[in-house]
Amino acid sequence: MLSMILLPALLAPAQADNPPDLVAIQQTARQYIELNQQQMLDQFSDLLSIPNVASDLPNIRRNARHIVGLMESAGFDMQLLEVEGAPPVVFGELNAGAEQTVMVYVHYDGQPVQPELWSSDPWTPTLRTDLVERGGVTVPPEAPFDPEWRLFGRSAGDDKAPVIAIAHALAAMSRSGVQPSVNIKLFFDGEEEAGSPHLAQFLDRYEHLLGADLWLFCDGPVHQTRRLQLAYGVRGHVGFNLRVYGPLRPLHSGHYGNWAPNPIADLTHLLASMRGPDGRALIDGFYEQVRAPTPAELSALDRIPRVDITMRQELALGRTEIPEQRLERRLLEPALNFRGIQAGGTGEGSRNIILPSADASVEIRLVPDQTPAAIREAVERHIREQGYELVETEPTPEQRQAQPRLARIDWGDGYPAYRSDMTQPLVARLGQLMDEMTSGELVRLPTMGGSLPLYIIGERMGAPIVILPVANHDNNQHGRDENLRLQNLWDAVEIYAVVFALLGA
Amino acid sequence: MLSMILLPALLAPAQADNPPDLVAIQQTARQYIELNQQQMLDQFSDLLSIPNVASDLPNIRRNARHIVGLMESAGFDMQLLEVEGAPPVVFGELNAGAEQTVMVYVHYDGQPVQPELWSSDPWTPTLRTDLVERGGVTVPPEAPFDPEWRLFGRSAGDDKAPVIAIAHALAAMSRSGVQPSVNIKLFFDGEEEAGSPHLAQFLDRYEHLLGADLWLFCDGPVHQTRRLQLAYGVRGHVGFNLRVYGPLRPLHSGHYGNWAPNPIADLTHLLASMRGPDGRALIDGFYEQVRAPTPAELSALDRIPRVDITMRQELALGRTEIPEQRLERRLLEPALNFRGIQAGGTGEGSRNIILPSADASVEIRLVPDQTPAAIREAVERHIREQGYELVETEPTPEQRQAQPRLARIDWGDGYPAYRSDMTQPLVARLGQLMDEMTSGELVRLPTMGGSLPLYIIGERMGAPIVILPVANHDNNQHGRDENLRLQNLWDAVEIYAVVFALLGA
Repeated sequence: MLSMILLPALLAPAQADNPPDLVAIQQTARQYIELNQQQMLDQFSDLLSIPNVASDLPNIRRNARHIVGLMESAGFDMQLLEVEGAPPVVFGELNAGAEQTVMVYVHYDGQPVQPELWSSDPWTPTLRTDLVERGGVTVPPEAPFDPEWRLFGRSAGDDKAPVIAIAHALAAMSRSGVQPSVNIKLFFDGEEEAGSPHLAQFLDRYEHLLGADLWLFCDGPVHQTRRLQLAYGVRGHVGFNLRVYGPLRPLHSGHYGNWAPNPIADLTHLLASMRGPDGRALIDGFYEQVRAPTPAELSALDRIPRVDITMRQELALGRTEIPEQRLERRLLEPALNFRGIQAGGTGEGSRNIILPSADASVEIRLVPDQTPAAIREAVERHIREQGYELVETEPTPEQRQAQPRLARIDWGDGYPAYRSDMTQPLVARLGQLMDEMTSGELVRLPTMGGSLPLYIIGERMGAPIVILPVANHDNNQHGRDENLRLQNLWDAVEIYAVVFALLGA
Repeated sequence: MLSMILLPALLAPAQADNPPDLVAIQQTARQYIELNQQQMLDQFSDLLSIPNVASDLPNIRRNARHIVGLMESAGFDMQLLEVEGAPPVVFGELNAGAEQTVMVYVHYDGQPVQPELWSSDPWTPTLRTDLVERGGVTVPPEAPFDPEWRLFGRSAGDDKAPVIAIAHALAAMSRSGVQPSVNIKLFFDGEEEAGSPHLAQFLDRYEHLLGADLWLFCDGPVHQTRRLQLAYGVRGHVGFNLRVYGPLRPLHSGHYGNWAPNPIADLTHLLASMRGPDGRALIDGFYEQVRAPTPAELSALDRIPRVDITMRQELALGRTEIPEQRLERRLLEPALNFRGIQAGGTGEGSRNIILPSADASVEIRLVPDQTPAAIREAVERHIREQGYELVETEPTPEQRQAQPRLARIDWGDGYPAYRSDMTQPLVARLGQLMDEMTSGELVRLPTMGGSLPLYIIGERMGAPIVILPVANHDNNQHGRDENLRLQNLWDAVEIYAVVFALLGA
């Protein structure tokens, strides 16, 4: 339960014709944070102590009930949305009597952990001065706090911080009499790290509750430069395993090599035919459905700091693919990547044999308006054009003998990309507010390179989606020693206060 | 110790102007075998019961001493040739006062065993009616023997059978008064399965003992059709591991894919540039030193039964590489094979990452007159021409960053091929004898596809080498349930008797 420290009312209640000043709201939030750091950290620690792997349903429900309590104290009407066999969605509403409604998406589940890799128990939140590998040492969780200190624990960075920050942003506003300029809804997913398999079911069943003018997707890290960042899209994804065949059993390479077909050689030709030495896909139709970048997107790209140049050094890259395009521009194009290739042994594991088969794992990152179905068709057509017959299950010896070239293709599930229109009024207003907050240093990323099935929300709900991350870029998301830098938690309170107070003003 | 059963003298002693008849010698040998099967099998079992992994020096010496006893009884002057740290070479001489001398090479060591895979203990010789997987059952090792029965044990097929067969061939000749037509020397290697690392040292140190006009290399199996076979050469070998580089650490394929170079993609282009879709090497100079097949070799090829056609079915091959050439013809050409390729995972093991490196294992089977040095140079030149800088150890981050394309190449030891001239008089005479023995069914294989460092003997000793195998083709050499079909042991006695009696006649 929240027990708010009283804060002097610095500001008069917002009025329609006299919206509160952005700088004043920032100051209000900062003063509130100054006075409430200990409480925020205690509450964050309490939340992080509840294990939250999506498959651990009893603990997931403990998380959900705990969050319901926190958000009720912040003024929300809370309820758990239920779908058979799924962690509940923690849903909340705060009706400010405003014209527009913002839906805040957060996920409260976390990645499974390997505790033996961590410096401290993943579900025993621990405050340290820095990352252990940079010499960080444990400190008592007591004010005063250095803003560079970090709280370590599973989901500290991904994605429980927004829960605490939203509650306190509203507390800060309430204590100083600032009204939300938009109605606020909360959609806290309990199975994002498991791939949100029931998301579409939740959206369908609770459609009547979920109307909104904008979805704020509060997940992921801020920019590597520590600048605030908005991302307006994600890429889609489709992958497949490709297997080509040699002899029915391994053969002595001296007696039968260069007579029996070598599946590794065939696979190299097949993969090389798909992707040129410069990284461009050579599959007919691969770029056909690609939506051209808008002027707003291109101009946003120009303003992003050039991290790719320092990253090239950090990663010891001797070149980049399609070098005339910077990293963020590449993300507006589809990518054809080889994730793995396997046949026989190498190095000490080499054996003088011709192998029965060779495998490759291939993935394609999609952009609007590509569809997984069209890409699948283009890929299969391409493979057939290289002289292959395609099968989807393990071929019989008869099938293998009947075809000079035979490939097995196993498609994974695929889904399309999603990208918002940066010039849509509410989307543009959000960018403008955040840009003002950061004195023009906001990073507007037209799309993230990674993939999320945002299209499910985009298609069903009809509202634009913008990704607003608050975690530090080095939060070790998904890995060992996941953490949140305290300044990022303080900043998050300020960001939410500004957005709630001014987005609809 | 041999205790020979007396055999009636069927033939008069050989005379220079009246060489014994081939058919008569075959009959002599067959009658001898008929009467001595039990003793041969007992002696073979005794020899197979002595463990013979080259690194097991005490047991290797037990084998050597045992063989010395066997061959002394057969009339040889025996000694152990020694080189520091090596199993001894069991050396023997039988001076028949002939003009020409034949050196018989056999190896008495065997491959290491995995007893848990065997149907019976590898060093407890066991007689069965057939392979266990074909329904074979154990039978008492007592005459009368069905010639299709097999004796199971390590080195039954590879390569202790010639030891027993040579001793009994001489016993059969001696009992019927047939004189050897050549002087016979024995060179029994004790570390062939370990790669004969001291062979050159033995040849150098004991050069004064090892003069011969022909080396008979008694190892390997007869033809798959069960026809007798002579092979006149082996291929050379050189291999390397090839590694190409991506980013210094694994990267998220969504955020950095198709910007950071993909080492799997680079590797596919590099390997595809080395070997065309039809199997031909595309490396400049690869075929430059290749010796053209002689008319004798081409005509021998024409007479070999077409096992490749049935093998294509058995192996479910939808095509063969360079299909205008039959399998045995392909062996007269060098082969470029990819033995393994590895980077990341495939199938269930796929992860969405761009990998730091990708590896391939490549081997080249050499033919005369290719040299490993020239091939190494051609391969490295080819890789450089694809835009790669080559390194031989793991590159530093600075080296990786300094080159658009960087490859590490790790060469294994290599050695050249060896091939005899089929028309050399003693070589031709051997072929003629064996062809007569088999009513024209002898298979003359210009070269085996596999590799052995015969060049060491060929270069130093100056005498031609011919490979004369006696084991059944399905002897499971190197594997579990290694065996010798009894008929192959009986045949071997007959073969050696004919060769010793008539080669110099």
